Amino acid sequence: MSLYHVSAENTQGIIGEVQLSSGQLVKTSHPLGKEEGFNPEELIALAWSTCLNATVKAVLVEKGKGDTFSKVAVTVKLEKETSQNGFYFQIDGKVFISGMAQDEGESIMFEAHKRCPVSKLFSQSQTVSLTYLACLDSF
Amino acid sequence: MSLYHVSAENTQGIIGEVQLSSGQLVKTSHPLGKEEGFNPEELIALAWSTCLNATVKAVLVEKGKGDTFSKVAVTVKLEKETSQNGFYFQIDGKVFISGMAQDEGESIMFEAHKRCPVSKLFSQSQTVSLTYLACLDSF
Repeated sequence: MSLYHVSAENTQGIIGEVQLSSGQLVKTSHPLGKEEGFNPEELIALAWSTCLNATVKAVLVEKGKGDTFSKVAVTVKLEKETSQNGFYFQIDGKVFISGMAQDEGESIMFEAHKRCPVSKLFSQSQTVSLTYLACLDSF
Repeated sequence: MSLYHVSAENTQGIIGEVQLSSGQLVKTSHPLGKEEGFNPEELIALAWSTCLNATVKAVLVEKGKGDTFSKVAVTVKLEKETSQNGFYFQIDGKVFISGMAQDEGESIMFEAHKRCPVSKLFSQSQTVSLTYLACLDSF
């Protein structure tokens, strides 16, 4: 049995409103348009940055470092396929954990990446990258 | 060069606010909590249902059937891993296209699934399914 489940029903395509079974009616929009609402690129960036940073924080708690500041930034780029028609998302994640140099930080990042449910969905994708930044200035 | 890009920065984990580079500050929440805001399951369901139905509609337009009603419902379930610690998302998509029986509908659905940027991210995942429903009552 699932711990939680939710459904979204889209009948209008890219611009319109999507009904969530959890209650909200959510406006959606085209990435190149001016409409109000979230486009798929924004939704994916929100989902992965939130899920991965939550998992980073869970790993930090297990290591007795629950008060440590961490940051996950996710950039989603809409790119044109070169070898065929159509488009794809290039997704680049960056992780920073306060006071952690490259080796230790990377180790926690990859532990979280192995466990984060959104990371698991992307794990075989060739268009997803993840980088540890030992310095907040690098964001 | 990208056609479009957006970034999301999460510093607070699962419950808090995420800054989008496109402007919005978005509240996020825990799937099992009572807080206001979107949880990752909702964000993934919104992203895939919107992106896939937009692509279904693009395929229908190419076939001269741009006025045809279509619906994509996506359910995201939070599941506990059986063979290891941690959690994963089981994601089930359902597609309906008005007036299209199983064979024709499935063919358009799989064409869209091949082209949709969110589908491409998930395409190697073992926990994502997609089903064509020839009858709207089956949703």
